[in-house]
Amino acid sequence: MPELRQNVATKEWVIIATEGARRPEEFVQPDKERVEDRPEHVATCPFCPGNEELDLERLRIPAQGDWIVRVVGNRYPALRAEGERSRRFEGMNPSIAGVGYHEVVVESRRHNTSPATEQPEEVERTFHAFQARGRAFRDDARIEQIVYFKNHGVTAGASLVHPHAQMLGLPVVPYSIRARMEEARRYFDDRGECVICRLRQDEEQEGTRVVLASEHFDAFVPFAALSPFHLWIVPRSHRASFLDASPEELRDLAQVLRDLLRRIFVGLNDPDYNYVIRSAPDREADSKYLHWYVAVVPRVTRSAGFEMGTGMFINTALPEESANFLRTLAST
Amino acid sequence: MPELRQNVATKEWVIIATEGARRPEEFVQPDKERVEDRPEHVATCPFCPGNEELDLERLRIPAQGDWIVRVVGNRYPALRAEGERSRRFEGMNPSIAGVGYHEVVVESRRHNTSPATEQPEEVERTFHAFQARGRAFRDDARIEQIVYFKNHGVTAGASLVHPHAQMLGLPVVPYSIRARMEEARRYFDDRGECVICRLRQDEEQEGTRVVLASEHFDAFVPFAALSPFHLWIVPRSHRASFLDASPEELRDLAQVLRDLLRRIFVGLNDPDYNYVIRSAPDREADSKYLHWYVAVVPRVTRSAGFEMGTGMFINTALPEESANFLRTLAST
Repeated sequence: MPELRQNVATKEWVIIATEGARRPEEFVQPDKERVEDRPEHVATCPFCPGNEELDLERLRIPAQGDWIVRVVGNRYPALRAEGERSRRFEGMNPSIAGVGYHEVVVESRRHNTSPATEQPEEVERTFHAFQARGRAFRDDARIEQIVYFKNHGVTAGASLVHPHAQMLGLPVVPYSIRARMEEARRYFDDRGECVICRLRQDEEQEGTRVVLASEHFDAFVPFAALSPFHLWIVPRSHRASFLDASPEELRDLAQVLRDLLRRIFVGLNDPDYNYVIRSAPDREADSKYLHWYVAVVPRVTRSAGFEMGTGMFINTALPEESANFLRTLAST
Repeated sequence: MPELRQNVATKEWVIIATEGARRPEEFVQPDKERVEDRPEHVATCPFCPGNEELDLERLRIPAQGDWIVRVVGNRYPALRAEGERSRRFEGMNPSIAGVGYHEVVVESRRHNTSPATEQPEEVERTFHAFQARGRAFRDDARIEQIVYFKNHGVTAGASLVHPHAQMLGLPVVPYSIRARMEEARRYFDDRGECVICRLRQDEEQEGTRVVLASEHFDAFVPFAALSPFHLWIVPRSHRASFLDASPEELRDLAQVLRDLLRRIFVGLNDPDYNYVIRSAPDREADSKYLHWYVAVVPRVTRSAGFEMGTGMFINTALPEESANFLRTLAST
């Protein structure tokens, strides 16, 4: 019998329909060109060493000598740093000038790698770059919300192969983030605690959906996972903003994320995926009811008209089975 | 300069980023096997005549002789008709038994067609089937929301080629639909009118985003279109539920939808697409502030981590240009 499950933090329902469902092994991707089989350097790749467009460069680590990580402005930015956050109306329709930031973290000098095949220290550098640029975005009074993410593979929206992540500074708080804030505030008002803190503790205690636990994080498949192998990596320490994560947390997060991505890489044959760092608007960085975390979504299924029309998902994998599959995989 | 636009009905922001954007012509799809080049009958297709599974059949038009349209239960339904809508808790996590309906409208006897290559009367029959089964779903007290949609092509989520649409009867109102209801109610309280009625009238008057107008409908690219060629088909007559659309409206809608799908088919070389009928929960069928409509989304771009993390979209096509492109295309 199918089941509807609700995420208590987001209030979103998902249909878990396991009839005719595939076993975890059936989501293993068909063979394709392996990342490691590509050349380490490609003369035409804009992110490979030797092709740096210095006018787009926003950050270079280390500042001297060969860079290890670079942050560059997107060549076709969705938002631009210049100008006022002016609001206009066309008839009844509101618009705002597209001011903000759209930058790319070039995660490695090597063309043929990805977090799953890197060392944890390399993954950690991406987080340091996110924080360094994120703090600059935050200091800009026009910015309301920062979003950090990675698209890996064509079906996950990546248009370039060279390993990179992205971040945007937005002049508005997106509607769906406002809605989640409102639900989190309501939960806090009712129960006097952060809903994500409670969720993490419950998942840790219940155990069946936990994939791994580290000093600073719990990684689990949510009770109402939207798709097979959907993961949340939640910090034990309550903080609203990713920018307030400590250096120790970033080091630990890099280990955890790289471990999970490696399990997915090995166990599912390098599927495309997205990860997103969900962080509070930085004006709410001291909030008692908002809690940053990382969501990882392997792209092993497609969304269609149903998801478009309802915002709900149909997940054909039992979250407990997804978790068990990832838990029992060795990561290296 | 990019621009953020807000949909006044949904309150969602979209980034319109036209720098480095593609001209409408650049979204024309690469050639692939054409629907019409496929065989008209396929022995292994579960929807072709001769392969009817009668125990799954829910409706047949006409009732006697060769059918023209059939409605069948989904072989692997996301929801099942049997049982109580019982709510349980696992710790803090709510779940509901997956009761409801998940049915497929087989739109034609012919394997090698699609609405764009059918006659309007054929498209109209799909809407009659939606209404006939929708009324049966509505009469079931366990059902809170009905959703009607079509997935055309693999990237739009269709797993079978034979032309078909789908409908589900859900035992909950999805969170995103509740949120839209709440925004529509607020607008009504502030202005004393339905926001979709107002939007449609404004688009008709403004004209730059209108693709076509018929006796009963306006079809336009919304001011805050989420993707290139995103379309809304809005009935002139205020009704909350699609089930209350009149036979004349269904006939007209079939003409309009088929005309639009044909423009997309011809002008963009048969891209994959979804359409969704957005209809109020049927307990709210008399609502003054909810208004049913059809959304059409050609799948010419991909969503990625940004959309996942924010619920916002980046649209690289100017809505006015998308509308102009579709408007100036002949439909036949």
